[in-house]
Amino acid sequence: MSTLEQKVDMIFDSYNKYELTSRIDSDNIVSRDELIFIVKELRKLLFPGYFDNVKVRSEYVKYHIGEKIELIEYKLSKQIKRALDNCEECGLSTEELDLKASETAGAFMERIPKIRDYLYTDVQAAYNGDPAAYSTQEIIYCYPGIFAITVYRIAHELWELKVPMIPRIISEYAHNLTGIDIHPGATIGEYFFIDHGTGIVIGETTIIGKNVKIYQGVTLGGLSTRKGQLLKGVKRHPTIGDNVTIYSNSSILGGETVIGNDVIIGGNTFIVSSVAAGMKVNTRSPQLEYSVDSAKYNSEYSDWII
Amino acid sequence: MSTLEQKVDMIFDSYNKYELTSRIDSDNIVSRDELIFIVKELRKLLFPGYFDNVKVRSEYVKYHIGEKIELIEYKLSKQIKRALDNCEECGLSTEELDLKASETAGAFMERIPKIRDYLYTDVQAAYNGDPAAYSTQEIIYCYPGIFAITVYRIAHELWELKVPMIPRIISEYAHNLTGIDIHPGATIGEYFFIDHGTGIVIGETTIIGKNVKIYQGVTLGGLSTRKGQLLKGVKRHPTIGDNVTIYSNSSILGGETVIGNDVIIGGNTFIVSSVAAGMKVNTRSPQLEYSVDSAKYNSEYSDWII
Amino acid sequence: MSTLEQKVDMIFDSYNKYELTSRIDSDNIVSRDELIFIVKELRKLLFPGYFDNVKVRSEYVKYHIGEKIELIEYKLSKQIKRALDNCEECGLSTEELDLKASETAGAFMERIPKIRDYLYTDVQAAYNGDPAAYSTQEIIYCYPGIFAITVYRIAHELWELKVPMIPRIISEYAHNLTGIDIHPGATIGEYFFIDHGTGIVIGETTIIGKNVKIYQGVTLGGLSTRKGQLLKGVKRHPTIGDNVTIYSNSSILGGETVIGNDVIIGGNTFIVSSVAAGMKVNTRSPQLEYSVDSAKYNSEYSDWII
Amino acid sequence: MSTLEQKVDMIFDSYNKYELTSRIDSDNIVSRDELIFIVKELRKLLFPGYFDNVKVRSEYVKYHIGEKIELIEYKLSKQIKRALDNCEECGLSTEELDLKASETAGAFMERIPKIRDYLYTDVQAAYNGDPAAYSTQEIIYCYPGIFAITVYRIAHELWELKVPMIPRIISEYAHNLTGIDIHPGATIGEYFFIDHGTGIVIGETTIIGKNVKIYQGVTLGGLSTRKGQLLKGVKRHPTIGDNVTIYSNSSILGGETVIGNDVIIGGNTFIVSSVAAGMKVNTRSPQLEYSVDSAKYNSEYSDWII
Amino acid sequence: MSTLEQKVDMIFDSYNKYELTSRIDSDNIVSRDELIFIVKELRKLLFPGYFDNVKVRSEYVKYHIGEKIELIEYKLSKQIKRALDNCEECGLSTEELDLKASETAGAFMERIPKIRDYLYTDVQAAYNGDPAAYSTQEIIYCYPGIFAITVYRIAHELWELKVPMIPRIISEYAHNLTGIDIHPGATIGEYFFIDHGTGIVIGETTIIGKNVKIYQGVTLGGLSTRKGQLLKGVKRHPTIGDNVTIYSNSSILGGETVIGNDVIIGGNTFIVSSVAAGMKVNTRSPQLEYSVDSAKYNSEYSDWII
Amino acid sequence: MSTLEQKVDMIFDSYNKYELTSRIDSDNIVSRDELIFIVKELRKLLFPGYFDNVKVRSEYVKYHIGEKIELIEYKLSKQIKRALDNCEECGLSTEELDLKASETAGAFMERIPKIRDYLYTDVQAAYNGDPAAYSTQEIIYCYPGIFAITVYRIAHELWELKVPMIPRIISEYAHNLTGIDIHPGATIGEYFFIDHGTGIVIGETTIIGKNVKIYQGVTLGGLSTRKGQLLKGVKRHPTIGDNVTIYSNSSILGGETVIGNDVIIGGNTFIVSSVAAGMKVNTRSPQLEYSVDSAKYNSEYSDWII
Repeated sequence: MSTLEQKVDMIFDSYNKYELTSRIDSDNIVSRDELIFIVKELRKLLFPGYFDNVKVRSEYVKYHIGEKIELIEYKLSKQIKRALDNCEECGLSTEELDLKASETAGAFMERIPKIRDYLYTDVQAAYNGDPAAYSTQEIIYCYPGIFAITVYRIAHELWELKVPMIPRIISEYAHNLTGIDIHPGATIGEYFFIDHGTGIVIGETTIIGKNVKIYQGVTLGGLSTRKGQLLKGVKRHPTIGDNVTIYSNSSILGGETVIGNDVIIGGNTFIVSSVAAGMKVNTRSPQLEYSVDSAKYNSEYSDWII
Repeated sequence: MSTLEQKVDMIFDSYNKYELTSRIDSDNIVSRDELIFIVKELRKLLFPGYFDNVKVRSEYVKYHIGEKIELIEYKLSKQIKRALDNCEECGLSTEELDLKASETAGAFMERIPKIRDYLYTDVQAAYNGDPAAYSTQEIIYCYPGIFAITVYRIAHELWELKVPMIPRIISEYAHNLTGIDIHPGATIGEYFFIDHGTGIVIGETTIIGKNVKIYQGVTLGGLSTRKGQLLKGVKRHPTIGDNVTIYSNSSILGGETVIGNDVIIGGNTFIVSSVAAGMKVNTRSPQLEYSVDSAKYNSEYSDWII
Repeated sequence: MSTLEQKVDMIFDSYNKYELTSRIDSDNIVSRDELIFIVKELRKLLFPGYFDNVKVRSEYVKYHIGEKIELIEYKLSKQIKRALDNCEECGLSTEELDLKASETAGAFMERIPKIRDYLYTDVQAAYNGDPAAYSTQEIIYCYPGIFAITVYRIAHELWELKVPMIPRIISEYAHNLTGIDIHPGATIGEYFFIDHGTGIVIGETTIIGKNVKIYQGVTLGGLSTRKGQLLKGVKRHPTIGDNVTIYSNSSILGGETVIGNDVIIGGNTFIVSSVAAGMKVNTRSPQLEYSVDSAKYNSEYSDWII
Repeated sequence: MSTLEQKVDMIFDSYNKYELTSRIDSDNIVSRDELIFIVKELRKLLFPGYFDNVKVRSEYVKYHIGEKIELIEYKLSKQIKRALDNCEECGLSTEELDLKASETAGAFMERIPKIRDYLYTDVQAAYNGDPAAYSTQEIIYCYPGIFAITVYRIAHELWELKVPMIPRIISEYAHNLTGIDIHPGATIGEYFFIDHGTGIVIGETTIIGKNVKIYQGVTLGGLSTRKGQLLKGVKRHPTIGDNVTIYSNSSILGGETVIGNDVIIGGNTFIVSSVAAGMKVNTRSPQLEYSVDSAKYNSEYSDWII
Repeated sequence: MSTLEQKVDMIFDSYNKYELTSRIDSDNIVSRDELIFIVKELRKLLFPGYFDNVKVRSEYVKYHIGEKIELIEYKLSKQIKRALDNCEECGLSTEELDLKASETAGAFMERIPKIRDYLYTDVQAAYNGDPAAYSTQEIIYCYPGIFAITVYRIAHELWELKVPMIPRIISEYAHNLTGIDIHPGATIGEYFFIDHGTGIVIGETTIIGKNVKIYQGVTLGGLSTRKGQLLKGVKRHPTIGDNVTIYSNSSILGGETVIGNDVIIGGNTFIVSSVAAGMKVNTRSPQLEYSVDSAKYNSEYSDWII
Repeated sequence: MSTLEQKVDMIFDSYNKYELTSRIDSDNIVSRDELIFIVKELRKLLFPGYFDNVKVRSEYVKYHIGEKIELIEYKLSKQIKRALDNCEECGLSTEELDLKASETAGAFMERIPKIRDYLYTDVQAAYNGDPAAYSTQEIIYCYPGIFAITVYRIAHELWELKVPMIPRIISEYAHNLTGIDIHPGATIGEYFFIDHGTGIVIGETTIIGKNVKIYQGVTLGGLSTRKGQLLKGVKRHPTIGDNVTIYSNSSILGGETVIGNDVIIGGNTFIVSSVAAGMKVNTRSPQLEYSVDSAKYNSEYSDWII
């Protein structure tokens, strides 16, 4: 068997061999633990009285809000600074970092009421859409769909404010807990309802209208590629209209795929082309085309050409 | 940028605007952390020696049981009291709360042997159904399916005892960890085996017979509706016979859908009508009907009519 | 209501009734908490500077490595000893346990560079395959696919070293967090990319080539059986060639099912027979055979015969 | 050796034998951990910015105060309720407990500014009296004397509000940490300075004037008795005038012992009779009388008669 | 400045230079944290209902006792084994260690009732001796003297059972918290009362009768020596009769010093010779002799000869 | 009763009234918790194998040292930076802070071997001086005197390196735990032995020779003053020669007080003038002068003139 020193040397050599997977002499990335703490505190601020350990008295409400803002903004600002500092393409000088970080954290906090506007509609949609729900309180307190949407709405505002890394990390935190993977870059309208949710994937350039309901296992994704970085910024994920329902385990792929208003999509479908408004489709619907127009996707980039 | 005071005012206004998503001056909901603790202790009581930190000596067994009962019943009783207190439709006076809570917790503890009866069969089913299992010990200690079923069997007894909120919260805890979402209201027979399990959904009014085996991604669900609260109490989820096997990612929907005894359902099917006993069906089976008899579901309630 | 003593007696009787689900007077199984700690420390050793709380300075690297090896090898050795001690079929005497455990832990540590070799290619594959990835740093820090593959590559080496129980427990830990269930016995080549990942299942005897990409909800599984233990050791899961892409929610089952090189499999397929090299198949591909040659699987063992 | 059951029986018998040292079927006493938490939060409120983890910004100060008051008053009120409930001689009905507890906690919070008035003078006295002090900041942050006085000033207000048990428990907490034992019933004037402090004892009925300085090991105590409960409420501890200095390890005992203004008492003296204003005494001062006038202390109560 | 490597080498050299202060390649000493945990659990067992987090119901008492015995005996046995293993002069073979450790832990548990017999008298003495005590409950819950005596009575039984290291470590734990340093080897009779207690020292070979009361700062010690190891086992500390009271800061030294029954010793005395029964002495008592008969102490060993 | 808002206003006013006891808008002082962590890690580095959780293997020693240095130096450097930043009289620019902090932390680490040199002699002195010590291991592991001296020797090196605040904070940490208060500015020679220790005070300008032994309650202090800041830097505490023994509770005061070599001082003495070499003194020694030459201390500064 090798001695301790020999083992150390073998691993040391491996560090030198692959610099990509070693971060020697680099500052720390943002702290995932701190971001999770921030998300939990934000949830308390967004739904006062639901996740606090004690009653939020009306006499105390303003102090409660003030205390939460101060704590969250302080911690968020520190993490944004680390994220910006670690982001080469952001191109900020050391002097600019502090200002940019605190301005961004401040701007985010001002969007809390907007996030609450959206979440109010999402809770309503869940209550209307689920016969198993006994109260809106139950939905807010324990539905994974509402948790995932809450984290998405937070992450999306940070994404809009061009904060690097952080939106993705907190999205993955929600993904871990719920199995629901919503990319912070997606655009999602009011009254959004996710039922059960495990296995849902919503890609970066997806656009979703109002009053949409999706079930567990639904993918709103892109076509596969082996040259990923060349497609950055291109719309690769579908557009979903208003009042659409998508049943479990269906996959809808491609940036030019448009699902019209009022469509109902049955479970287990695999859809790579558009569906007109008002249609109801299932796995046997003859109008579903599985082949993709190769002209739409440069074959150099995508490996889906059937 | 806004001052701290301005931000406080904006959020304060939002709290006043949406009372639904604010719980000001309300007592706390049950504690999720305490419920998770209770579930962990129950697991130790249900499988003695498996999850304890030290050997459970036979000389000590009775004291071990007594200590666990005292701890669990005390904590559970406190949480049930909070749940009942928070439940308007339960209609209990303050005086009745304490008695009802302690009676219910006591009654639940008396059902531990019954839960162990069921779990014994579930562990057997897993051992017989999985060539990858090296021992029943491995199954109990690390199979997510057994964990989800254990939590379901606990939650179901609490559901039967008409405890509000709590069964759902602990089900969602198991859902978080395993991706398996079994509603505590479902009825599930002996020798139930879940393999892998991620993405499984079993709805509130589902009935499952004995000796059933289901794989990851299987949904036993309801048809979509936008007027959920009107359907409360209606049987909306399927009935599964004895000795049925359902392969991965299949969805079986609807309260009148009955899967007969000894049926095998292949993967990725989408089933909204009944399957006769003894059949083996897959996505191409001609007898599978995708359209739902609209007479069965009042179109006012459901949005699935193809 | 029963007294405390009566409840104790009822549960005590249940313990005596089912010995299978009671471990009285038995030593503890391995500690899941310790194994999770070990996995987290291994991740720090495999990706230096990514998950540490402070910068890893180049002057300090060798001490860092030495400290991690000492800690991990010590703790791993203790857990391996417990696993071996608890393993009847391993057949080691008390005297042999210590030596075997420390030799095995040492041999595992020597494979760290090899694991890093593989992970380097996996990170590259993720970067090339995902337009949403902003940097390899983001991939390593927060992609669940990379986490699951990292844990698999650790667990697989322990599996190769014939360590009982432990590989499975750490695989289930990754399964909990990511919804990705890779059996440690599977064989997976370089440049393996999992996108999103929730619901993926890769069975014990699966063989995967180089440069393979699979999406969420994909199952590489076995056919169902009710006599599991008789099939132990038999190849029950498919073989996947090089450069294969498998879209979301597809299930590929059976030990004799071979997917040739360069195949693309669309989403939601259910495949129980082989696919030739270079093909692109979807749910409507006429060449997909759903029936399994019953001669291949002894009908005594498997319950899939359509 | 005894079996577990025999040991249990032996201890069970001992519980029945001595009811005084067993509290079976009694509610819990106040929580020491909660009280320590309250003291730590009060210290943050009394010295803003000193013991907080982050800067207290002026824009935030009012929210900071509001948050601390809400938290402390809530927790303190709960503990006061438990203390009152556990206090037979308090004679409150169950209905009165809640009101009395919350009124008392509220009244205490109103005395925070008064406590700060005193502490300002104590910090000044420490700065003026100790050449080793580099700044008032150092005194507040790390002098055990200031910590003990802070806790005393808190405990004394609770004592004045007739809260049972709690003042004593928090005094003992300070005693644990600093070796300084100040009974909450003592009366202590402004500009009080304790240097080093270990071993100081200040009894329940002690009265201390302004601008007094005492060193480590000084006792301001009572004469010994074997019939303690008969002396409850009697003044048993000395009265110390203004501007007095008492050197290390001196003991001053007895309720009729009065130390006049401007007295300096050397170290290691044992004083059981009064000292006139302006005197400087040491262990050899001929005027120190060691015998106590037996008429002063009923020999039935006290065992000090030399 | 030195490099990291140079610093490492300097310290490495220092380790080699002084082997006395380096324990390389040695097994761990007993765990102080575990011992503190054991003491806290023992306190719960000795005073049921006082330090538990919840009410100890009479229906539950026996289970409570059984659970505490099992936990404490298990943990104590492990620590005793480590202490014996680490004790060269104990001379046990590896085979004997386990048996000796478990026998000793068992024997200790059998002495719990005896410890409770003593503590009952100590609590009574405190109640009778202190006018400031409002209830025996207050004494048990927060008097440092009772805590120190409780730990002493535990440690003394372990000392009697010839357990190495552990009695001393738990005595020092009480010393840390209370400033009261009672050597576990001391012999102390019933009805022992310590008031305030900070600074008290009671040496290894001290013998104390019944109904003794001592105040803060009292030393019952030995004369100084520079050749300590030669005096091991010799009686070096005083003997105190029944019904003795010793006031604050007095020191009584020497193994042949005997304080007779019913003596009262004033504060700040320094006593190195015997005091006859019934006397009351203070610092000016002419009968106190400060010089020690040099014949009693071999001048080779002791450095006190005045 | 006041409303929450009224209470907030009252406390807010108090903050404005006393700026001395409010640190609004100021950066945090050094972290006491971090410093305690550093002291604990330093203790592991100074006594390898004593306080670690696992055996320090010789193969691993150098890595162990390297890991400890990296961790301690990093954390210490951060705290020194905060201390320097918070120190007005230090007069460093923001640019100089980082360099000065890291240089100082580095210089401190280089003194570890020197600290070990001293501690070796202190452990020897304890072993030779205490018949109750069973081994040097026991002394290092649980004697409070050795702990206090260890912390002093650490704090003294930081004091020598002119680090503000930190030496005092860690001294007070040891004072809390042991009741031994050694100012980091004191100068103490080799072979220093503290027995029991509670109540010991050693002032800032004290000088102690080699081979000195002091007991609990001993004060080496200054004369009292009410104008402390004017005396800063003046020698105010005594000088103790080599081979001196000081018994319990004695106080030796004053900067011009010199205790000669080989002196033995009995217990409970109060000494404010010098003692010639070789003398043995007790409370009745006629040569002890209690009055202080008023010429030595300007009466403006000191309030001790008898």
